[in-house]
Amino acid sequence: MRAQLTRDGTRRVEVRLGGGKDYRIEIAAGALEGIGAVARGTLSPHAQRIVVVSNAKVFGLYGERVAASLRGAEFDVATWLMGDGERHKSWRTLERTLAFFGEKGLGRSDAVIALGGGVVGDLAGFAAAVYLRGIAYLQVPTTLLAQIDSSVGGKTGVNTRTGKNLIGAFHQPRGVVIDTATLRTLPPREMTAGWCEAIKQGAAGDRHLFERTHQALDVRATAGRASVDDDGSLADLIAAQCAFKAKIVANDEREEIGRTDHRSRRILNFGHTVAHALEALTGYRRFRHGEAVGYGMLAAGELSVGLGLLAPAELESLRRTVRLAGRLPRADDLALAEILRALPADKKSVGGHVQWVLLEKIGRARIISDSEIGARLLRSALRAALARDL
Amino acid sequence: MRAQLTRDGTRRVEVRLGGGKDYRIEIAAGALEGIGAVARGTLSPHAQRIVVVSNAKVFGLYGERVAASLRGAEFDVATWLMGDGERHKSWRTLERTLAFFGEKGLGRSDAVIALGGGVVGDLAGFAAAVYLRGIAYLQVPTTLLAQIDSSVGGKTGVNTRTGKNLIGAFHQPRGVVIDTATLRTLPPREMTAGWCEAIKQGAAGDRHLFERTHQALDVRATAGRASVDDDGSLADLIAAQCAFKAKIVANDEREEIGRTDHRSRRILNFGHTVAHALEALTGYRRFRHGEAVGYGMLAAGELSVGLGLLAPAELESLRRTVRLAGRLPRADDLALAEILRALPADKKSVGGHVQWVLLEKIGRARIISDSEIGARLLRSALRAALARDL
Repeated sequence: MRAQLTRDGTRRVEVRLGGGKDYRIEIAAGALEGIGAVARGTLSPHAQRIVVVSNAKVFGLYGERVAASLRGAEFDVATWLMGDGERHKSWRTLERTLAFFGEKGLGRSDAVIALGGGVVGDLAGFAAAVYLRGIAYLQVPTTLLAQIDSSVGGKTGVNTRTGKNLIGAFHQPRGVVIDTATLRTLPPREMTAGWCEAIKQGAAGDRHLFERTHQALDVRATAGRASVDDDGSLADLIAAQCAFKAKIVANDEREEIGRTDHRSRRILNFGHTVAHALEALTGYRRFRHGEAVGYGMLAAGELSVGLGLLAPAELESLRRTVRLAGRLPRADDLALAEILRALPADKKSVGGHVQWVLLEKIGRARIISDSEIGARLLRSALRAALARDL
Repeated sequence: MRAQLTRDGTRRVEVRLGGGKDYRIEIAAGALEGIGAVARGTLSPHAQRIVVVSNAKVFGLYGERVAASLRGAEFDVATWLMGDGERHKSWRTLERTLAFFGEKGLGRSDAVIALGGGVVGDLAGFAAAVYLRGIAYLQVPTTLLAQIDSSVGGKTGVNTRTGKNLIGAFHQPRGVVIDTATLRTLPPREMTAGWCEAIKQGAAGDRHLFERTHQALDVRATAGRASVDDDGSLADLIAAQCAFKAKIVANDEREEIGRTDHRSRRILNFGHTVAHALEALTGYRRFRHGEAVGYGMLAAGELSVGLGLLAPAELESLRRTVRLAGRLPRADDLALAEILRALPADKKSVGGHVQWVLLEKIGRARIISDSEIGARLLRSALRAALARDL
């Protein structure tokens, strides 16, 4: 699953899952213009209606371009706008979205398009997963985080009072269209959040990808370019990130229970155990998800060093790269006891034990049960990771 | 996929779907006693907790026996009782059920058991499908309809205001345990409903199965035995029905769009287009689902004769068998215009056309688009099928 460059400058990544679930990721500046053709090429020949799920902000920027392209390909297009932000990835929004699909008479061969970031993608994908027991959808991610991570791999879901993403489905998209030009309008904090997940993927599973990501961040920091991609190097990096994600997903599509090897999908949860706790504790208001992952990776890195798994120099390299991603909201004012209390509800638990994704080195994860991690080590790791001065 | 008889008198049917989704159906009087062993044999070795989803009536009759068997196999058992009846197969009940799973700390390797009829099975199965993006469940059907049809094949879902089963998932159970002794307490109308679905399966896809079903009904009508099964002949028939259903499901697990051949899963919708309309029109209060299917089959049969597909003698044979299944609630007082209005919302539509499952003969279905069915024919078919005197 390598990224390929076509003659017109589009990067392509094939996601091979078998069982009729293969799909393609297309990456290019201006890719939105081609969404109608992609939909015609990937959806059922019977497809007539498409509901574009988005939020007002994203739709205001890109909605008309997408709708026009779809109409040009003779689809009947309706738009469903949901609220912006993690708290709208809710059971309530899901219910209303599904009712809208029903009102519009969406049929089994029709489709949904998720136009936006991870919140829109997760909710729209889940709605598509359960409407008429599953209809087709396309991911059109407009944030860096969604482009490199959440739009690929078919994890969908909503948050409930009991926890984040506790309700959801594995439902693979029929295709992913990534327009890197959308990053030009992305707020700096959203870029930081995306970079953190990019760092995560390299750190957890691919040293070369980690180094490429570090380099890209370094160039950007030096040149002061937030998101412009004149030479296509950002598109290349996004393609490499997607190819990595696709490889992991192809190997372990449904994150099989009990798999703890360094190729399992579970390694992508690197940094997420602490991240979920930080997000829940602050009511999903203080941190962007990726920002919380920034801290979570450092906490997992500290634990890895504390257990003698990881060389301190490797942790230092991870810390430098996270720092390059951008400034994270402070976390040193949160009570350790409350963070610890927020941890065990993490759903990656097996048989009552939280499974931590730690590192043996940059690019190789190791999964450890929390029974091997002492309370004192956990406290000191959290303290070091969440300190004001990264 | 033949039924096999083991030495202890248990009938077994293997459902072969591939991709790690194979499972076994076990059929025996007293099978509930062995549910703990089945759960241990089929669930993850990490499984600790089980939530039994049921309703007060069924749980009152069989719950303690099931819980005791599970506790004997060292599971931690919790019980979630939902309301009885189709109107409780709702979005609201689903939400509360999922919250209960979360409160009980159900983990990814834990499981759900659906103990009851089709309503319990559909709701519990769907809850299992979306909790933590899918956990294991076992079907323990206690009605004839659920035993021969709805517990096998992985269709799960809930009803919403927009329609019946509009929201759901394909999620295969890890196993099905059928205790034929539970039929002794089943009310006569529920038996009638089950027999109608049994007739449907034979009529739509297997002439020999239809004849066996007719014969069983005939013997019962003569002997006046409602549900006792001293000689195991009912268990044999249920096993044959399950084997038929399993074969269809294995061939077309997700009811692929556009498939209209006589082996597609779609043929199992024989009688359902009109049945859904009748149920919706009467607020799901007058008819048991199977009873409505009884009328729906006759309507489809009349259409088939009207189009010259089916010999009138075949329709007469179908009518005789439906009559043997038991008395259906009257339907001749419903306004034809309203039934017609209730039809097109049927979700089996492709490209805006309702796909009717009709018959070429008993045991062989044919799928016809409603564009081939004139309004006058439809009216006269409905009038004949819904007449007071079947």
